[in-house]
Amino acid sequence: MSFERMWQDLGPVGRSASSGGYFRQPFGSAERECHAWFLEECAARGLEVESDGNGNTVGWWRAGSGSSVLTGSHLDSVLDGGAYDGPLGVVSSLAAIDLLRDRGFVPSRPIGVGAFVEEEGSRFGLACLGSRLMTGATTPEAAQELRDRDGVHLLDAMAAAGLDPQLGRGTLLDDVGVFVELHVEQGRDLVDRGAAVGVASEIWPHGRFRFDFTGEANHAGTTRMEDRHDPMLTYAMTALAANKQARLSGERATFGRIEAVPNGTNAVPSRVTAWLDARCETDESLTRMLAEIERLGQDRAGRDGTALSVTPESVSAAVGFDADLARRLAVDHAGGDWPIIATQAGHDAGVLSAAGIPTAMLFVRNPTGVSHSPAESAEIADCLVGVEALADTLERLAG
Amino acid sequence: MSFERMWQDLGPVGRSASSGGYFRQPFGSAERECHAWFLEECAARGLEVESDGNGNTVGWWRAGSGSSVLTGSHLDSVLDGGAYDGPLGVVSSLAAIDLLRDRGFVPSRPIGVGAFVEEEGSRFGLACLGSRLMTGATTPEAAQELRDRDGVHLLDAMAAAGLDPQLGRGTLLDDVGVFVELHVEQGRDLVDRGAAVGVASEIWPHGRFRFDFTGEANHAGTTRMEDRHDPMLTYAMTALAANKQARLSGERATFGRIEAVPNGTNAVPSRVTAWLDARCETDESLTRMLAEIERLGQDRAGRDGTALSVTPESVSAAVGFDADLARRLAVDHAGGDWPIIATQAGHDAGVLSAAGIPTAMLFVRNPTGVSHSPAESAEIADCLVGVEALADTLERLAG
Repeated sequence: MSFERMWQDLGPVGRSASSGGYFRQPFGSAERECHAWFLEECAARGLEVESDGNGNTVGWWRAGSGSSVLTGSHLDSVLDGGAYDGPLGVVSSLAAIDLLRDRGFVPSRPIGVGAFVEEEGSRFGLACLGSRLMTGATTPEAAQELRDRDGVHLLDAMAAAGLDPQLGRGTLLDDVGVFVELHVEQGRDLVDRGAAVGVASEIWPHGRFRFDFTGEANHAGTTRMEDRHDPMLTYAMTALAANKQARLSGERATFGRIEAVPNGTNAVPSRVTAWLDARCETDESLTRMLAEIERLGQDRAGRDGTALSVTPESVSAAVGFDADLARRLAVDHAGGDWPIIATQAGHDAGVLSAAGIPTAMLFVRNPTGVSHSPAESAEIADCLVGVEALADTLERLAG
Repeated sequence: MSFERMWQDLGPVGRSASSGGYFRQPFGSAERECHAWFLEECAARGLEVESDGNGNTVGWWRAGSGSSVLTGSHLDSVLDGGAYDGPLGVVSSLAAIDLLRDRGFVPSRPIGVGAFVEEEGSRFGLACLGSRLMTGATTPEAAQELRDRDGVHLLDAMAAAGLDPQLGRGTLLDDVGVFVELHVEQGRDLVDRGAAVGVASEIWPHGRFRFDFTGEANHAGTTRMEDRHDPMLTYAMTALAANKQARLSGERATFGRIEAVPNGTNAVPSRVTAWLDARCETDESLTRMLAEIERLGQDRAGRDGTALSVTPESVSAAVGFDADLARRLAVDHAGGDWPIIATQAGHDAGVLSAAGIPTAMLFVRNPTGVSHSPAESAEIADCLVGVEALADTLERLAG
């Protein structure tokens, strides 16, 4: 089956020999190799490739007339990420096209397979950058200010990868009537429910906030503890407070990224910068949780003689997917209905949905429940059920 | 006066325009520029330059006979460090030579001005690397394993700087009978005592310990808080515990350097590595404090489902300087005796003292009490008192 061959093709690209995880940052060599692979697969199927100036690409099965049905996902990964988050949706989309053709299906409208760029925000810090630009959720002016950890601007990174950047909406989505994204599940809902495939109901609101803790650099040996203004302590208490708040409310708060300055063993830091990833059931509870974490951090800063400032870097409101569409997709399959579940993860589907395009998501069961990690997984049998589910969905929507 | 001219020469070298702090890492361009400047100053005074294969250099005033008197300090800085820590001792030594010659002093034994390499350990992680190698406190085999943050080995860094490395004891210290290091004070003892200059009694024992916290990388959105094994939380609690232990005992514990993996905003980290800098009044209390911090960290690791391992990277036992020498130097000056004070900072003087060379240190008052920071300071008038004090000391020892 075409799925397995394609999956093997992508397997080694950007894989770390030591951790087994993937490093496919946008416009870097591994991600570009995935992108070149995608163009080849489109060409092999006679899909007409169309790219926008943001780095997003769609391979079109030109057929029928009227508004098109778009599917696909992304090829980039977080740092040391899993194999499935992103590529599973792209590979499954191509395999679903093959399956539809094997079935002799003749679409009554065009079907597109999309690959969106920088979905993870692992390089430029803004998740779903490609879909945000193409829907106007992020302006070209704002995107031009983005820099990676080495200080490289987005436009320079694109040019270095041989692209001719033209940031902005473009026309790629102009005739899209509906979008369906297949994705590996990033939790254990489908494991708990004993289902290989599920349908998304909503995405929780999600924010990334930069916490800048500033104090006074000093000698780690000679400076009495009581004379210090150590921002590391303010950070440490804030990280523990964030965890506690999220536990209390059954929501999510994570400090996974941190930078200390000067980051020397024998110096009290002058500054610690850390990024809070917060996700809550409602927009109101996200606002409330952030305010409480910041309040606890400010209290501690007062005691430490340090300062804390909090800057939102990206905030995505709650996304409710098209409920009718989800119900239509979920019912009446061999083996029963597919469960309808919420997700706490952001997706390009969320951005397209927020832009007014009727959108659905299919999830494939992940036995470990782990994601953004080399331990992310999916059984091949479940992946094939996912391909069938996506083919069925496209057949319904483009039939 | 020669001191002020030399101080101005060095002022711009390796200075950050944004912070005003210094970046003079060993074998990097700024530190090499300082080293070249040192060679020129030696040549201008007719001092005979002798270097060992570790990167240490001494400029000799060949005079008299018998064992020599060595002074000097280091030219490297911590990351974003102050101007005085190190260079003040080198510049004051050269200025003291000038002053002795102005006085018409004729030494009865050789006097050397030394510049030791990588005193801070800011590049290769091992403080006093140069003096450790030349005294045999660190073996060449151990030093060859050292790598900087970019993975560059010590020998490669030295070769890249045009040096011909021959790590090991060498002969530079063979005839040294006594060592005196002048240094900016790194606390507020002399401020509190109203003295421009003081003499060191001892250096507290000091250790650097790497704390590796390991957990399970996972998605920051979809992973329920109770399903996580987040090493950042174990770290945060350990950092707060270290601070509390040091406060309780009136000693020092600092986590100033941290690295998270993969260090992505939307990923629970798989690993957090942080370095504890601990300094206590006695060897026993250092051992006790480390054990207590580790115990508290292990307790939390048990609750977080993470693991903690602690690796000593360098441990220096207490150093008591030559008490007779210190008393002799401290008494009977214009304006009264100089105070004798302890220090919590490591110095090349501590390494040479531990190697059996009678050693003394002079400190110059630091109005801010701040060190390892751009805010480190010393009044020019106090620096000139320091030069006189050092010249007086050399005259006593080499007279």
